[in-house]
Amino acid sequence: MSPGSVLAFSGGVGGAKLALGLATVLPPDRLTLVVNTGDDEEFFGLHVAPDLDTVMYTLAGVVNAATGWGVAEETFHSLDMLGRYGAPTWFRLGDRDLATHVLRRQRLDEGRSLSEVTEELCHRLGVRHLIVPMSDHPVRTVVETDEGELAFQSYFVERRCEPRVRGLRFERAVDALPAPGVARALRSASTLIFCPSNPWLSVDPILAVPGIREAVRAFRGRRLAVSPIVGGKALKGPADKIMSELGYDVSTIGIADYYRGLCDTLVIDEIDRGDVPAIEARGMSAYSTGTVMRTPEEKIALARDLLRIADAG
Amino acid sequence: MSPGSVLAFSGGVGGAKLALGLATVLPPDRLTLVVNTGDDEEFFGLHVAPDLDTVMYTLAGVVNAATGWGVAEETFHSLDMLGRYGAPTWFRLGDRDLATHVLRRQRLDEGRSLSEVTEELCHRLGVRHLIVPMSDHPVRTVVETDEGELAFQSYFVERRCEPRVRGLRFERAVDALPAPGVARALRSASTLIFCPSNPWLSVDPILAVPGIREAVRAFRGRRLAVSPIVGGKALKGPADKIMSELGYDVSTIGIADYYRGLCDTLVIDEIDRGDVPAIEARGMSAYSTGTVMRTPEEKIALARDLLRIADAG
Repeated sequence: MSPGSVLAFSGGVGGAKLALGLATVLPPDRLTLVVNTGDDEEFFGLHVAPDLDTVMYTLAGVVNAATGWGVAEETFHSLDMLGRYGAPTWFRLGDRDLATHVLRRQRLDEGRSLSEVTEELCHRLGVRHLIVPMSDHPVRTVVETDEGELAFQSYFVERRCEPRVRGLRFERAVDALPAPGVARALRSASTLIFCPSNPWLSVDPILAVPGIREAVRAFRGRRLAVSPIVGGKALKGPADKIMSELGYDVSTIGIADYYRGLCDTLVIDEIDRGDVPAIEARGMSAYSTGTVMRTPEEKIALARDLLRIADAG
Repeated sequence: MSPGSVLAFSGGVGGAKLALGLATVLPPDRLTLVVNTGDDEEFFGLHVAPDLDTVMYTLAGVVNAATGWGVAEETFHSLDMLGRYGAPTWFRLGDRDLATHVLRRQRLDEGRSLSEVTEELCHRLGVRHLIVPMSDHPVRTVVETDEGELAFQSYFVERRCEPRVRGLRFERAVDALPAPGVARALRSASTLIFCPSNPWLSVDPILAVPGIREAVRAFRGRRLAVSPIVGGKALKGPADKIMSELGYDVSTIGIADYYRGLCDTLVIDEIDRGDVPAIEARGMSAYSTGTVMRTPEEKIALARDLLRIADAG
């Protein structure tokens, strides 16, 4: 990786928006996107990697713009037929999306690593930037709720995040290793960015892979996180609900509490600039800017802001 | 199986038409359909069983009536996406059809036999008659051509039966066993029917499974075959071309030569009734009737004719 290169940690939809901004302003040799795979799940024996695919589809320009995930103009005829066969269909796998999982399964069965498969799929879709799973080993996020333990997708999709979260654990994380591309980027990048992803559902699984949290703590370049909480709410997903259930203050200050020791600068939305003193009191610098990314221009603007802050650091 | 029960051997489209006729006039406990799986092939790591699925889709009433195979109102979005990933797409797997193969792969990986999977899929689609693969073991038809050996689907679909056939062999047949339902039906059925399928491509692989040819030769009930050649031509597929390439007379007489020792009565189309003496000279009785099945009524009529001939035997 070139000098001045960036490593960004990302989950799904929210993270993918910033990932696209970064990929627009940085050449491929200056960006590595490390993506959560704790959400991965087997459906019908296929390996489904929702966050990896969301980032890949987003960078490939084939993502469903309305939802932020899945493929544009998707259809569900395979899933309807699977339903006729009595198979569970609450996880909405589209026809085009299914092709990704079928091919991934085939390649994994042939002995390729998840990193290698991701690289092949990205290459075929014309994605030039490096998208890397956090690990080539399976790590599975389990949500401990007031209704018992739930596999991540059961909690997130089937149960629509309704059960109250008491904690999370990352099954088999102890046996995992960072994917080669993660280890490489952690050594060579000069800037580390936490995309505005859910810290507990998307960032924690990445940090649970042995060696990653330690490398982040020891990282010598600039470390920035973008708050996924804006004006006391999550822009998307259950981050605010989970924060509250886990006893965090539902604010950028609660996010600062999470990132303490992991990150030097918390980037928050202008609407939250009143939180700056409280964040700085936690030993972190704070920077407020527009963090809501509705348009391509806003994604690029935030990416540029982050690089500017990193350079100034 | 009840007394007066029927065992029918079938390949794909042509055989499935008669299979539907038989399933319409016989209750489930009086019919076993044994289907060729020499055509089976792996695509994208999935187990595709074209003949089994053609018979299943036909009996389930979901078959594409225009082609005789595949699912009605099929779409190909998964395949298009597989194509974007650079995967071969000459074998046209539809979205609905793909669901069958995904689920079959999953069940086989769970340790179920192909017979068990077929039974489950049929049950879910409302098929009440027993459809049984010739074997639960893999047997693969290889076509020896003037351009070298070709896997069956490469010959049949990718190369559109263009290479000249010199012979056929059935890979791994020596290691196969008849599926339990085949063995059961061979013991208990009182009538054995060869559907108007291609003898070399669809019937020979079934007979190549150790024990089946011997059981057919020793079969104590009535054995009937319906000629797939009508008026010197195959109604569908390359039977006539292959007959000629293998040195057979392209006529019902050539079909009689093939079935010598395997079958007592050859049922031919009225248009070929002039062939009756030549067929009878080969030690087989011949019976002419309408064998072209364009409508449901024609399928039922032929099924009834066959049962009548068998009863008269």
